[in-house]
Amino acid sequence: MLGLMQSKQLMISSILTHAAREHGEQEIVSAAVEGGMHRYTYADAEKRTKQLANALKALGVGVGDRVGTLAWNGYRHFELYYAISGIGAVCHTINPRLFPQQVAYIINHAGDKYLFVDLNILPLLEALAPHMPRVEGVVIMTDAAHMPETKLAETHKVICYEDLIGAEPETFDWPVFDENTAAGLCYTSGTTGNPKGVLYSHRSTLLHAYAVQMKDVAPVGAADCVLPVVPMFHVNAWGLPYAVPMAGGKLMMPGFRLDGENLTQMMNDEKVTLSSGVPTIWLGLLQYLRASGKRLETVKSLMIGGAACPLAIIEGFGKEFGVSIIHGWGMTELSPVGTLNAPKPGMEDYSDDDRYRHQLKQGRALFGFEMKVVDEDGNEQPRDGKSFGRLLCRGPWVCSAYYNDTENPDGILDDDGWFDTGDVATIDSQGYMQITDRTKDLIKSGGEWISSIELENIAVGHPGIQEAAVIALPHPKWDERPFVIAVRNEGADVDRDGLLDYYKGKIADWMIPDDVVFVDELPHTATGKLLKTDLRQKFAEHKLPTA
Amino acid sequence: MLGLMQSKQLMISSILTHAAREHGEQEIVSAAVEGGMHRYTYADAEKRTKQLANALKALGVGVGDRVGTLAWNGYRHFELYYAISGIGAVCHTINPRLFPQQVAYIINHAGDKYLFVDLNILPLLEALAPHMPRVEGVVIMTDAAHMPETKLAETHKVICYEDLIGAEPETFDWPVFDENTAAGLCYTSGTTGNPKGVLYSHRSTLLHAYAVQMKDVAPVGAADCVLPVVPMFHVNAWGLPYAVPMAGGKLMMPGFRLDGENLTQMMNDEKVTLSSGVPTIWLGLLQYLRASGKRLETVKSLMIGGAACPLAIIEGFGKEFGVSIIHGWGMTELSPVGTLNAPKPGMEDYSDDDRYRHQLKQGRALFGFEMKVVDEDGNEQPRDGKSFGRLLCRGPWVCSAYYNDTENPDGILDDDGWFDTGDVATIDSQGYMQITDRTKDLIKSGGEWISSIELENIAVGHPGIQEAAVIALPHPKWDERPFVIAVRNEGADVDRDGLLDYYKGKIADWMIPDDVVFVDELPHTATGKLLKTDLRQKFAEHKLPTA
Repeated sequence: MLGLMQSKQLMISSILTHAAREHGEQEIVSAAVEGGMHRYTYADAEKRTKQLANALKALGVGVGDRVGTLAWNGYRHFELYYAISGIGAVCHTINPRLFPQQVAYIINHAGDKYLFVDLNILPLLEALAPHMPRVEGVVIMTDAAHMPETKLAETHKVICYEDLIGAEPETFDWPVFDENTAAGLCYTSGTTGNPKGVLYSHRSTLLHAYAVQMKDVAPVGAADCVLPVVPMFHVNAWGLPYAVPMAGGKLMMPGFRLDGENLTQMMNDEKVTLSSGVPTIWLGLLQYLRASGKRLETVKSLMIGGAACPLAIIEGFGKEFGVSIIHGWGMTELSPVGTLNAPKPGMEDYSDDDRYRHQLKQGRALFGFEMKVVDEDGNEQPRDGKSFGRLLCRGPWVCSAYYNDTENPDGILDDDGWFDTGDVATIDSQGYMQITDRTKDLIKSGGEWISSIELENIAVGHPGIQEAAVIALPHPKWDERPFVIAVRNEGADVDRDGLLDYYKGKIADWMIPDDVVFVDELPHTATGKLLKTDLRQKFAEHKLPTA
Repeated sequence: MLGLMQSKQLMISSILTHAAREHGEQEIVSAAVEGGMHRYTYADAEKRTKQLANALKALGVGVGDRVGTLAWNGYRHFELYYAISGIGAVCHTINPRLFPQQVAYIINHAGDKYLFVDLNILPLLEALAPHMPRVEGVVIMTDAAHMPETKLAETHKVICYEDLIGAEPETFDWPVFDENTAAGLCYTSGTTGNPKGVLYSHRSTLLHAYAVQMKDVAPVGAADCVLPVVPMFHVNAWGLPYAVPMAGGKLMMPGFRLDGENLTQMMNDEKVTLSSGVPTIWLGLLQYLRASGKRLETVKSLMIGGAACPLAIIEGFGKEFGVSIIHGWGMTELSPVGTLNAPKPGMEDYSDDDRYRHQLKQGRALFGFEMKVVDEDGNEQPRDGKSFGRLLCRGPWVCSAYYNDTENPDGILDDDGWFDTGDVATIDSQGYMQITDRTKDLIKSGGEWISSIELENIAVGHPGIQEAAVIALPHPKWDERPFVIAVRNEGADVDRDGLLDYYKGKIADWMIPDDVVFVDELPHTATGKLLKTDLRQKFAEHKLPTA
């Protein structure tokens, strides 16, 4: 027997309709690429998004077509999110910080019909012009006054965004279709192999946006102002461009200048209450606040994800600035949020130190997201905060297959529908998950596992160390042994033996690395992750003193 | 092109699975019908719910079967919510305060296979025994020690709840099926005609539960304790038995003693942060707090709905006790929440008086819920806070048809899918809706509409008036004119002319009622709504002095 409720499909377009109708006066403020602050309301955004939808149809963009964006967080990117998905096409957000050949690979693998590009990302596309023959045209996200000369015009149709939409009507009836229709596409910035595309649906996007704004995740109300530092080209800015208009909150789109000074000014000027970003961004902000003596006047909490958050950032914001750091975890494959570290009852009695240490964990599962840790045989590990293993997950906003993935034609789930995250983790008795490593970065020594991340975290606790990477090197007796590659803080004089001494008493003796080298900098992916593949190549011949 | 996300059905059983797994240590505390406080955890609740699911299957309850409950808010009722829907059957919550003949009508119309009944509601069923021939058995929600003798045993199989589940295994694999499957059934307590059944689905229930816990509605986190005073037999206690476990919050189930003293004690003992109920409940609580000198030590806000909240309650809690009243609106047909009155930016600068007056409005639409006000021709009225008309709504948790409704075989929606709420309302420029009347209670005088609720609200503002009902009486010249039936406060000596004088300057002169009578009490439905049909009958022959 069916419930006799209305059969409404979950449509992304309904978010903007709701925001414009119920919160039409609420603002979206953007640091424009052309300079200055652009301000308008959800009511304005809806009109321009409808103009854009009409324009896309006129360009011949149809249901299922992919339209690529290479853009920072700003109002035109917001319009693209809603117009492209609203007509049934797929908004393919591309990370402009990837290596150019990866960008070309992604554009061609996705089969993007049109590309929308921000002014200062245009040079990247100009360089790629010969390598994207199937792209029908490029739209430059600016007005006629700022349109540049571009040699792209020699190979591609080039259009000015404001010219494209300017003459279109401000009315458009958003079509209603199957909520499982693809709406967005984002490629993983894998540390190995070619990037893989994750295809989000209208349904997965809406369910994720509902879950993300639960009280213990990222609650947003009409009185909030949210600044997503995390880019819109990086897993939909953690869903905030959907969650915030759902709640009628104000959006502060920060553009491309994400240094501490700019962030502080935008946060204080626009009365930001919540923001989200990766550790390096918050480290920059923390250093700026300390140096300038400024404070965040309205920010209550900062969401942090994308990489494990060091204790120093949590403590710094908490003790010095009264700002709470909310540690979370997700992946491109998860839309992206899976866990968030909000306290449970009783934790209000924790000492500051206990609380900060607890905040190092990546958090507990959102409703709708299931996770478990399994051993090598696939048996679930006890939730004791110690037993580690592969982290598996499932749920309506978890990927079941990559887009046009010829290597895995049957998808990427096991027989029970679990997705293997590639992370190694523990879960404690209260449900808090902590990533201990990537599966491929674990070090197996004498039959026992050693976490490379744990060793890196200890190293950066040393006052003389700025950053550290730990990789496995082969060892005749123990199979593998840990090896540290570290960057010193300016002026620091820590040496090999000093750093190895520092490990003593912090972990079991047999886990202490066998050797250290110091370098000027470590290699990273475009999204800030350590590129351990490069380090393994570079140090493949390094001989451990113990070997 | 379909998004390649996991195809997971939205299942109510997944809520309890999540709560037991991620918040297994969190408590459900219940004021037991047998006396005392019953305490257990979500982990315990899941085990017993699985026992109950096994027991229901053993009784022969299958997919689509209706199982009725006549019960207060307590842990066994919670188990029934999840076990019945979890096996694919329909949890039919019955209001034991309805007239017995209505209860019998509902049981028979729903075709309930089994009934579950709380100890002190058993006499109602005993009286109805001859009128429910198709009910296969009655389960009394208690243990063997408290099992009463009952003459129900002469006509029906009678079972003890704890005996029923005690021997069943604590394991059960919740089946996964179409999320549009019926999960719950609740009958409207209509003021006219027979009650009508609204059939909720798993999908509508989960989407509503997500929406209800948005920050501007009823945000719940793991550190909250929620006390639903609104009964579980009344539109699923506004969805809180689903929303709270989703968030891992603590549930305080208040049983049947809902007086101010009991509520105060439960709220303070269990550190309740959020509660929900109808105006009369909160009035009782307010009076108790004033008389006892006690305070609510942990409650931050009280949700109020089911009837318009008088200014005196909002002011009283706000000014005297620092507790914020959140005014909401919903209907059985809406699962039930449609709007909630949370502030928008700028309103923090309101004076206390302006804020309290604003809180009289029923609020703005939740995301996922659409509403509009239309005139008699169906044209949308401007959102100016003044233009009123019929309130229409739609969304995935709005009813499209009543259960087995032979009067409306084609459902109850218009061609565009809108449901007519039967309410008359305004919406202001910021999206705040205010109910001005029920369609059938509007008074048409000289071609113009007069709101009976507005006239009632003014009357109860008079210090001598406790309650007032305003109905239309026929008039030879003006077609209809307003007529007040009022109850005086104890010891008050307000008379007809005094009350009519009191209207002057508060509304247009032509809207002032033509006459007043005083009575000792007004008739109400089982859910506390004024029974104007009775008053219209009783005063049908009353002659207005102006007629």
